[in-house]
Amino acid sequence: MGIGPGNLEHMTTKARKAIEEASIVVGYGTYIKLIQDIVRKDAEIISGTMGKEVERAKIAVKKANENHTVVMVSSGDPGVYGMAGIILEVADQEKTQVPIEIIPGITAASSASAILGAPLISDFAVISLSDLLTPLEKIEKRLELVSQTDMSIVLYNPQSQGRIEPLIKAYEIMIKYINPDTPIGIVRQVGREGQQSKITSLKNLLNEEIDMVTTIVIGNSSTKIINNKMVTKRGYSLTD
Amino acid sequence: MGIGPGNLEHMTTKARKAIEEASIVVGYGTYIKLIQDIVRKDAEIISGTMGKEVERAKIAVKKANENHTVVMVSSGDPGVYGMAGIILEVADQEKTQVPIEIIPGITAASSASAILGAPLISDFAVISLSDLLTPLEKIEKRLELVSQTDMSIVLYNPQSQGRIEPLIKAYEIMIKYINPDTPIGIVRQVGREGQQSKITSLKNLLNEEIDMVTTIVIGNSSTKIINNKMVTKRGYSLTD
Repeated sequence: MGIGPGNLEHMTTKARKAIEEASIVVGYGTYIKLIQDIVRKDAEIISGTMGKEVERAKIAVKKANENHTVVMVSSGDPGVYGMAGIILEVADQEKTQVPIEIIPGITAASSASAILGAPLISDFAVISLSDLLTPLEKIEKRLELVSQTDMSIVLYNPQSQGRIEPLIKAYEIMIKYINPDTPIGIVRQVGREGQQSKITSLKNLLNEEIDMVTTIVIGNSSTKIINNKMVTKRGYSLTD
Repeated sequence: MGIGPGNLEHMTTKARKAIEEASIVVGYGTYIKLIQDIVRKDAEIISGTMGKEVERAKIAVKKANENHTVVMVSSGDPGVYGMAGIILEVADQEKTQVPIEIIPGITAASSASAILGAPLISDFAVISLSDLLTPLEKIEKRLELVSQTDMSIVLYNPQSQGRIEPLIKAYEIMIKYINPDTPIGIVRQVGREGQQSKITSLKNLLNEEIDMVTTIVIGNSSTKIINNKMVTKRGYSLTD
């Protein structure tokens, strides 16, 4: 299940109910903290660190096989860079008969956009700059092609302490095709304590403070700044 | 605000509260029906038909200016082919000082994927095949480039009674670059009464029953069918 951006009010009723009813809650420690207020008092919490995703999926499936009601927590949507895929793969490998339900959540593309205005109102692409699971050459090829589509682009996981090259490469590719004055939005800690957001232009991207918990939205040629909001025009005539 | 796919349980707490507290609820008739159970008994409902979006946005802004608490209802996420953009544009045009908040909802890419499995677990593009507001040549160019990225693709508004050409064109473009045996998922009426879903291969796309309320998800080269679910592998090793 997906908790959405992190703030309980952006969680769906179904997601909330899944947590409230679970006898075992599994997830990355940071996410568990965000939802601990609604976890059952007698529930077992199995948290862990980033990078141990497969291990957590295996534990979750094992516990479900032992007749527990297990909830596996992802931030945002479990189907977008989340745990939905690994859970289904591990369940298949372990030949589990237990029913599995994927409960969607609000992904960062949606939650960041709502803060910025309406930058994704038309077609868009979602690309992660993390090269842990996808080779950098593949990410670069995707950016090269997508930058020529005039679609808005959302960048997930743009940068971390030890990983700054992909964002520089992404900038170099985008600036070849996209107008440097195109509005971009930068949102940190969407829906969590310390939320920050800023609207600037593509040409300034590399001067901004960007980390793992930042989502970047690049507008398209129809994106304007209206009343400090980033709005991609969809083609409606306002003078109808 | 966005109601998500249509089923009240997939709505966020914040979205639900906005509807419950509104003195005026504005939206397309079909969406109003989905939420009528939680609208205040004394609230005024202003519904209308498809194609009258600008008119509804103007009414919503006018009513907000008259000191009403107005909620404008979009299905899915208001920031993805929804009303968020027009509302911000109209509010600017009318020089409104009333505070406006965009409340995100679960978009069809997420809700359809949760039913299909985990087809979007890595990078993906969202493209609408409706050529009402975007010229067909622009849609075709986007598909031409995106089909070469090996990203998953989500098609919104794929076809309507009078509009079948864009889907045929989309198929002809995708099949040039994407393996015809790539899994695709077709979901109708996500989260609503009459929900249907099917997993098949790209080569069968044009043989399927598809309409305005269908969402189509095309996998990438890592997408497999696992236990009747569509799963895009992200590169984790399960034998860690």
